[in-house]
Amino acid sequence: MNNFIKRTLTGIIFVGILLGGIFYNAYSFAVLFCIITGLALWEFYGLLKHYENAALHRLISTFGGMYLFVACFLKAGGIADNLTFLPYILFLMYVFIYELYTKAVNPINNWAFTLLAQIYCAGLFSLLNFIAVQPAQLTHEPIYTPLFVLAIFVFVWLNDTGAFLVGSMIGRRKLFERISPKKSWEGFWGGLVIVLIASQGFAWYVPEISRLQWLGLATTIVIFATWGDLTESLLKRTLGVKDSGNMLPGHGGILDRFDSVLMASPAAFCYIELFIRN
Amino acid sequence: MNNFIKRTLTGIIFVGILLGGIFYNAYSFAVLFCIITGLALWEFYGLLKHYENAALHRLISTFGGMYLFVACFLKAGGIADNLTFLPYILFLMYVFIYELYTKAVNPINNWAFTLLAQIYCAGLFSLLNFIAVQPAQLTHEPIYTPLFVLAIFVFVWLNDTGAFLVGSMIGRRKLFERISPKKSWEGFWGGLVIVLIASQGFAWYVPEISRLQWLGLATTIVIFATWGDLTESLLKRTLGVKDSGNMLPGHGGILDRFDSVLMASPAAFCYIELFIRN
Repeated sequence: MNNFIKRTLTGIIFVGILLGGIFYNAYSFAVLFCIITGLALWEFYGLLKHYENAALHRLISTFGGMYLFVACFLKAGGIADNLTFLPYILFLMYVFIYELYTKAVNPINNWAFTLLAQIYCAGLFSLLNFIAVQPAQLTHEPIYTPLFVLAIFVFVWLNDTGAFLVGSMIGRRKLFERISPKKSWEGFWGGLVIVLIASQGFAWYVPEISRLQWLGLATTIVIFATWGDLTESLLKRTLGVKDSGNMLPGHGGILDRFDSVLMASPAAFCYIELFIRN
Repeated sequence: MNNFIKRTLTGIIFVGILLGGIFYNAYSFAVLFCIITGLALWEFYGLLKHYENAALHRLISTFGGMYLFVACFLKAGGIADNLTFLPYILFLMYVFIYELYTKAVNPINNWAFTLLAQIYCAGLFSLLNFIAVQPAQLTHEPIYTPLFVLAIFVFVWLNDTGAFLVGSMIGRRKLFERISPKKSWEGFWGGLVIVLIASQGFAWYVPEISRLQWLGLATTIVIFATWGDLTESLLKRTLGVKDSGNMLPGHGGILDRFDSVLMASPAAFCYIELFIRN
């Protein structure tokens, strides 16, 4: 299959699965992002050089992060109990104790890399739950509002597209040449303007949240999505790889597709808690 | 001052401050262990080779972990609100974004080491709050029960002493020669027996918790304290240092004093939630 068709098909399926999972209900949201968390972790552990751990440990650590996502979902939905986070605490202790028995050359690196991935892929991403899910009021079903999750993805995609188009046309001043030589300040501003305009579409559909609040959320997401993209570029540049993986044919790896969202989600969470829900 | 007197004096002051902070009230507990968390983090960041970060970043990361401890105290006491953990989430994003601007040779290591210390020193230790503090029922004061925190320290100290005495007298079979050549299985069993006996003293004073529950808690603490000690030994052995620092004259560093407690606390938390409070 030629590369353009492969890219387009993968892109359509990817967007379809994401939107389907976000819109269907709280549980499809949880399952979808739990799987994405797992794929991101697995890919991250594969990327790291000098990560000496065995496949079983990599698998356990991947499941550990997926469990954290599920535990945060339960917590956000008000259906967690005292024991919900216990398996994750046991997992963290396991990570430390495990290295006593591996005879690895550098156990400190193994601890540090295992836990870096937990925070980068699972910890930050788990905050999506607290954006989307609120404790049940009358029933046992958590209250699910996909609005802001949708906004994060739409804003990130529009920002990527806008920055690429404007940057290609009039990009001159480099944004961050050392880490991502193709990005320009013109592209950044172009992406921002497009997302600001799109945010007013959201304001039109969801008037309970003011136009100004939407502008603030859009700006927050664009800034942190850009930082998220640069963070993953720095990671890949340090490791000397071009793509984080090849899970999505023509689009690179999972982390390549979610790098912006990984940083935009916690930032959006902070913004929403501070300026919208507070 | 000769070394024996220095060691003894430091030991008495150390134990006095700890017991005073644990017994006085919830806030002295929080302040004491928040400071210990900070000292442990500062020491940990100093220990790591190839940790390229500037003193200001080390200071911010230390305060980040101390803030996590305070946030967990507020959460455990039921006096946290939606914004309590926000500063820590901002701190985590700062850790990632910071490396974009440092031109460090290996930003991945800096991320990983910064976050390893957060989990090892601040994250695991913060669980002490959930052992000691419960949400307020009628007043705004959190309910503070120092009992189990005291038990952790008393059991760890008795285990250290018992293992040393029994091990010195009849120690033959090595417990973990590669990592800690002086420890013996005889010492381990000796420490365990002494702690099991001491736990029955606690059971006598606190009959609401059964003798069997105390035996289980004592066994859990001894096993994980030993693993905690070995974990820190592995850390020091990998770095080629003898002591983690020199904050406590004659006793080494903060991590040397708290290595067992760092692992015994989360294990005790899990045991208490599973078998005592459940």
